[in-house]
Amino acid sequence: MDKQNPRVVIIGAGFGGLFVAKDLANKPVDILLIDRNNFHTFTPLVYQVATCGLDIDDVAYPVRKIFARNDNVNFLLGEVTDVIADRKAITVKTNGETRIVTYDYLVVAAGSETNYFGKDVIKQRSFGLKTAEDAIKIRRHLLTLFERAEWTKDPKELEALTTMVVVGGGATGIETAGALYELFYVALRHEYRHMRDNHIRVILVEMADSLLGPYPDRLRQSAKEQLEDIGVEVVLGAAVEGIENNVVYLSDGQEISTHTLIWATGVKGASLAEMVGVELARGARIPVEPTMQVKGLDTVYAVGDIAYLEGPDGKAYPQQIPVAQQQAKLLAKNLMRQLNGEKEESFQYFDKGMMATIGRQRAVAWVFNRYQVTGVIAWLAWLGLHLITLMGFRNRLSVFINWTWNYLMFDRVARIVLGRPEDTETEAAQQSKNTLSQAAGD
Amino acid sequence: MDKQNPRVVIIGAGFGGLFVAKDLANKPVDILLIDRNNFHTFTPLVYQVATCGLDIDDVAYPVRKIFARNDNVNFLLGEVTDVIADRKAITVKTNGETRIVTYDYLVVAAGSETNYFGKDVIKQRSFGLKTAEDAIKIRRHLLTLFERAEWTKDPKELEALTTMVVVGGGATGIETAGALYELFYVALRHEYRHMRDNHIRVILVEMADSLLGPYPDRLRQSAKEQLEDIGVEVVLGAAVEGIENNVVYLSDGQEISTHTLIWATGVKGASLAEMVGVELARGARIPVEPTMQVKGLDTVYAVGDIAYLEGPDGKAYPQQIPVAQQQAKLLAKNLMRQLNGEKEESFQYFDKGMMATIGRQRAVAWVFNRYQVTGVIAWLAWLGLHLITLMGFRNRLSVFINWTWNYLMFDRVARIVLGRPEDTETEAAQQSKNTLSQAAGD
Repeated sequence: MDKQNPRVVIIGAGFGGLFVAKDLANKPVDILLIDRNNFHTFTPLVYQVATCGLDIDDVAYPVRKIFARNDNVNFLLGEVTDVIADRKAITVKTNGETRIVTYDYLVVAAGSETNYFGKDVIKQRSFGLKTAEDAIKIRRHLLTLFERAEWTKDPKELEALTTMVVVGGGATGIETAGALYELFYVALRHEYRHMRDNHIRVILVEMADSLLGPYPDRLRQSAKEQLEDIGVEVVLGAAVEGIENNVVYLSDGQEISTHTLIWATGVKGASLAEMVGVELARGARIPVEPTMQVKGLDTVYAVGDIAYLEGPDGKAYPQQIPVAQQQAKLLAKNLMRQLNGEKEESFQYFDKGMMATIGRQRAVAWVFNRYQVTGVIAWLAWLGLHLITLMGFRNRLSVFINWTWNYLMFDRVARIVLGRPEDTETEAAQQSKNTLSQAAGD
Repeated sequence: MDKQNPRVVIIGAGFGGLFVAKDLANKPVDILLIDRNNFHTFTPLVYQVATCGLDIDDVAYPVRKIFARNDNVNFLLGEVTDVIADRKAITVKTNGETRIVTYDYLVVAAGSETNYFGKDVIKQRSFGLKTAEDAIKIRRHLLTLFERAEWTKDPKELEALTTMVVVGGGATGIETAGALYELFYVALRHEYRHMRDNHIRVILVEMADSLLGPYPDRLRQSAKEQLEDIGVEVVLGAAVEGIENNVVYLSDGQEISTHTLIWATGVKGASLAEMVGVELARGARIPVEPTMQVKGLDTVYAVGDIAYLEGPDGKAYPQQIPVAQQQAKLLAKNLMRQLNGEKEESFQYFDKGMMATIGRQRAVAWVFNRYQVTGVIAWLAWLGLHLITLMGFRNRLSVFINWTWNYLMFDRVARIVLGRPEDTETEAAQQSKNTLSQAAGD
């Protein structure tokens, strides 16, 4: 490594960290990119991995491959355990030992994690849906669940096994609920002879009075109608109060017997935020200046979900990929400006709009926050945009082929479950073993 | 289920069990197919999953999908724990409980497992390479290993991390050794800036005096030459005596520092064989009549790797897929003949030959045990044959695309590692942690 170049350490290879590294890759800096995984995850499609539509390799990309031709970008597989800003150093746990890594500039891009709002019981008994690992856990759970449902003789047990609850009326919740329903009804149903005539329930629970909070009224309504049209039950104005013995309790008094609670709501800054040593803003996020510098720390920047910055309307920028990408580009530029003694620029967000898919030929899109589109057109736009923004030609090709296959063949291509059935039970399912009886034999 | 049809229970959805089920799928029998996994594995390509060339979904196929249109084939995800032949019943552990399943006819097709010949230390410290799960473990180990090697400052540690030992000079051993070498030299090397100029060693160890025992001399010699040509070191006439503190001890006195010992030699009948209640033949296999009926048990058949049957030359048929497939076809036919009171036929094996690939454009093939082919032609034949015999159009398409991509781009497509680095260490690596020092910082 060229000792004369300043050393930039980037924590996190999500959209924020990755785009900073990309934009600095040909600049006179030495970059060390650190992540707990050897890959970057295309998070908008993680729910499709969970619901057997795509494989993990389709939505993940090896970090080393991205920077194969950039000799000034090094990668370290490990977990950052502390930030010691006054010594310009961090500690990293890697290969079972802790290393000290020093920096000239630090970029904190550790993203966000699921927020259970202090409800530990929900954290333990529900499935998160943020990471590749989450997706694999859900997939394994679902396929094992169907295998159990196929052979159970107990009607109550069958009902609980075939009822799935998704919490959160944002894009992830909507997309997951739709995909869950279609997984069974479109793809798997005919393969399960004993249970194929049973009704499967997917219940989407949202605390607010409508789905898709930030969208205009018409699209919110349309999303609900499209979901109900395929068969998903939408419960609005209700929160999950608790879960016990495979029963989910809602604040409106409903009790739902289920083995599957997917928590697709609420994010907070990754726990790394607490290590930076500044007072955190709402949602456990690191407050940054409009230049993306952490408030009070000249040589530390933060970007993306973990950074807290208010827009002109006084509201914090949302924890979304386009925000992270645009902040990352500015951050890279400002870091070089700081190096060259130039004045840094302030963040300005260009909002291209938002979209969510619901199922086959169903979606909503709010293009440039101006044009409201629903149904097939929105769905095609969603597919096209996600294909374009995927990283790497091979992943695009693979996703395109898998989508086409799934659509035409009414199939789901990714249904291989590793691990014995015994390994895959949730705590809730294990707990229920004593209370629920299943007929022996078949 | 139609109660008048006799009930055939098949244990195992490998090549033996699967082909029996397929051939009985349209016959007047009720079939219950039981497997520990929800998928059938195309075992000849498992080593490519281990070495990042293919993904697990490419070489595995959901059992339920295979029989989606056969209403007389049911599937149970579970592990058979006992066979009670005199009561015509088996016990199956499924979803954490044990069920009793009765049969009219039982087909034991549980395959084989790795034979460590009683050497427990090797079992604990080495990687098997028979199942999809084995492959994922090896892949995770290799990629984590390279990450460690990239950052270590200790030359001895670096040497051990970059030395890989494969035991077994059969097709699997040869193919794995070649693929391991190419994984690093062809695909990954340029991405690891610190270690790319280091020499990586892959050592193939075979106890006999030549590789590929059953092949003719010229092909055995060619396989060795082709392996050495790409860079693999071949050690003949030596066995692994033990492994301790990351050192593999060979019977010829060699001591090899390594973190990676892949055990690609020796199979024995799956442990289920012991439950059938008959005296086992050599290799813990179940002795069968030429009709594929288990000796002494009228209503129990065995097929494939777990079955022991001698050919006209007095030698047992090898534990290979074509044998299993041909036995399965005969078994299905004989089972129907027994049902109809007809005379059963005896097994006759049609040997189409054998082949093994070594690397890019390198292979050996012994077609119909008659024509000896090496190099590019053998390699193309190998690729074509494996593509054809893969199950399902989508898997063929996906493997074809991935192979083409890997070949043209000098890449390996399947490099996503799930699980934290800490989870992935072998016992050997953990044990070494105290004795091996790594420089802090980088």
